[in-house]
Amino acid sequence: MHMSHTAEIIAVGTELLLGNIANTNAQVLSQSLSTLGVNVFWHTVVGDNPERLKEALDAARRRADIIITTGGLGPTYDDLTKQTICGAFGKPLILHRDILEDIRTFYESALHVPMPENNTQQAELPEGCTVFDNPVGTAPGCAFESGGVHVLMLPGPPHEMETMLRRHVEPYLRKLSCEVIVSHDIMTFGMGESSVDQLLHQRMSHMENPTLATYAKPYEVRLRATAKAADEAAAEAMLAPVVEEVRQILGDVVYGVDVSGLPEACLGLLKEKGMTFATAESCTGGRVAERITALPGASAVYRGGVVSYWTSVKGAVLGVPQEILDQYGPVSEHCARAMAEGARRITGADIAVSVTGAAGPDPDERGVPVGVVYIGLAVPEGTFCRKMDSGRRRRDRIQGVASNHAFDVIRRYLTGLPIDRETEI
Amino acid sequence: MHMSHTAEIIAVGTELLLGNIANTNAQVLSQSLSTLGVNVFWHTVVGDNPERLKEALDAARRRADIIITTGGLGPTYDDLTKQTICGAFGKPLILHRDILEDIRTFYESALHVPMPENNTQQAELPEGCTVFDNPVGTAPGCAFESGGVHVLMLPGPPHEMETMLRRHVEPYLRKLSCEVIVSHDIMTFGMGESSVDQLLHQRMSHMENPTLATYAKPYEVRLRATAKAADEAAAEAMLAPVVEEVRQILGDVVYGVDVSGLPEACLGLLKEKGMTFATAESCTGGRVAERITALPGASAVYRGGVVSYWTSVKGAVLGVPQEILDQYGPVSEHCARAMAEGARRITGADIAVSVTGAAGPDPDERGVPVGVVYIGLAVPEGTFCRKMDSGRRRRDRIQGVASNHAFDVIRRYLTGLPIDRETEI
Repeated sequence: MHMSHTAEIIAVGTELLLGNIANTNAQVLSQSLSTLGVNVFWHTVVGDNPERLKEALDAARRRADIIITTGGLGPTYDDLTKQTICGAFGKPLILHRDILEDIRTFYESALHVPMPENNTQQAELPEGCTVFDNPVGTAPGCAFESGGVHVLMLPGPPHEMETMLRRHVEPYLRKLSCEVIVSHDIMTFGMGESSVDQLLHQRMSHMENPTLATYAKPYEVRLRATAKAADEAAAEAMLAPVVEEVRQILGDVVYGVDVSGLPEACLGLLKEKGMTFATAESCTGGRVAERITALPGASAVYRGGVVSYWTSVKGAVLGVPQEILDQYGPVSEHCARAMAEGARRITGADIAVSVTGAAGPDPDERGVPVGVVYIGLAVPEGTFCRKMDSGRRRRDRIQGVASNHAFDVIRRYLTGLPIDRETEI
Repeated sequence: MHMSHTAEIIAVGTELLLGNIANTNAQVLSQSLSTLGVNVFWHTVVGDNPERLKEALDAARRRADIIITTGGLGPTYDDLTKQTICGAFGKPLILHRDILEDIRTFYESALHVPMPENNTQQAELPEGCTVFDNPVGTAPGCAFESGGVHVLMLPGPPHEMETMLRRHVEPYLRKLSCEVIVSHDIMTFGMGESSVDQLLHQRMSHMENPTLATYAKPYEVRLRATAKAADEAAAEAMLAPVVEEVRQILGDVVYGVDVSGLPEACLGLLKEKGMTFATAESCTGGRVAERITALPGASAVYRGGVVSYWTSVKGAVLGVPQEILDQYGPVSEHCARAMAEGARRITGADIAVSVTGAAGPDPDERGVPVGVVYIGLAVPEGTFCRKMDSGRRRRDRIQGVASNHAFDVIRRYLTGLPIDRETEI
């Protein structure tokens, strides 16, 4: 028999209710819990308020057997999570001297400053708990079990929470579970969510295990195929035909399975072929460069690029001929081609991609409408161009979708697909 | 008498519980509600599940007089928010033919594709509701009042939600309220949250109205001063001395009030002085360029830059002398200075900033430890350099904090402050 666990995530922090930050911790935890086969039916956010945290804990105890809290473990005076949870579950708080020393050491050796004295309370933890040490911050986390409910307290800063999740929480939860859920993400670019949904609806609506669901990510659509089974091999055997069928139905808009996005897909393809690339960006202003260099190991394939925001920089640094700039303007197919060729030449990369367009809020000075963007690609065989027209969307949306087009053009070239096809987004 | 309203935000979407996206809608709504003087004590997320949505609605009705839902209004078959809310509040759903025509027009004119037929259900809305049209998407939102509780339904895609918020939700809520809350954000860079908290604790702990709170943003600390009053002028009069006092206590780590971040502060200063800048980035990989070009109007001050990820690009494009690269290596004060000088020269900008460092996960090839980054600044008066050591943090954290240092160096130069001071982060 497979016992399925249910977790609830309670985030504590007035800064969430005031909108100063988004609850990204709940997202990261949910992804992990989904992989571990733990159901999540509720996320709750309450402020630094003991009464409402108590109410949230009481509701969660009725509905779930795992409660994970984030936040409220910090050194400041409104951090009350531990006290409130210990009160609700009848556990005393104990000062751990060894943890206090760890916190002091972290301040001195990693941050090079003495520990502020208000950090002492971070070393107080519930009696008899499992301690989760915090190698990237100061507040340790912990877990205890009480009346069949597991309570896990994690710090609020996202990188501390995530480090603790991988090091301590996932191993802790893996011991509780005896059913696995395996998912594969099928990544697509170039087709809208409605169209993907219509193509797959007949197939999806009859599925119970495995399941298939569409999610609109920014600028693209992800499909997640998920199977529950007694072990990983059984789940994988259930998923393989689903992934294959989706690939067949959607065709070459599918750019990868279980990759984080188009930049990672391109990184893999370029590594495989031992090729390097460069960028020349105007309206995306460095977004293509930033997205590839966010990935560890990018230096194996990415040489660098130019952000030619001013027209003069397109001429002086990339060598775009003045006649092209005068005759066709900086937002034109001719300019996109010359920018890509220039970036390829000055960096010595095997291929180069360029982006020039009108991201808004105003049209380009020659009246090119907002949303029109040209993507150039210079490769050993010649130079190609794709025109994209995303319509009048917001500046950051246009920049985002244009950066995806840049990677899509690289991906299509490297996999032998046509580059200048019409796209729906 | 000032009646204070209390709102709850319920997000509907299994993709949130699976961790595919973060609940950024709750953040944006909370910021807005805070400004409008509406209290928010709970955020809840449930999946595309009518029973749990009903349970969340019942809890919210007991605790709040405004309920705002996001998500579940889309064209796909698991979008059930309207049906469930109408069931819970006893309102029939009515097809609005004019809205159906608007959706059809949006597809044809803005997206250049015919409307998929499953979009029809988006034109069904509760009887007697106020319709919120959706100029950037297809699902309209709506609001109705029932038994003293206002229920507002908004679409899930963040840019659609936010557009509707500004156009319809804020005016709708403003009519309900008769007290204003005014906040000012005091932005700091260069001091950790614990230190800020310790410096201000004595001042903050005695405050009730106005209040002062610290929030750690990524790579910096924001303070929010908030006052409630009968009108805006009264609230502003209460806030002015608080803002001034914080500036005095914290000194020149305060870089602005009510600006979104260091890039916006720099944009303003550069515009004021009629100066332009350029970038030369290695380990930040285009992040400085991307952050300035995310702001509309960046072209007034930002000419462009080079992402010199490979050492060869530092030489060939930026003209960093080979002797510097050989003798000191690409991660060095000498190289940072030469990169900034090169970017200034090839773009013709008044000033140029450079970033070179080890973002990890591995140390630089010459053994420069992860977290060490040099920030160069070339200006008409000469060239400066700041060394930053953030310790062994995660790659994206190092890249983020380094990009903040780049803007901080510009900000300090333009305001006549010393550039190469020690920083705590």
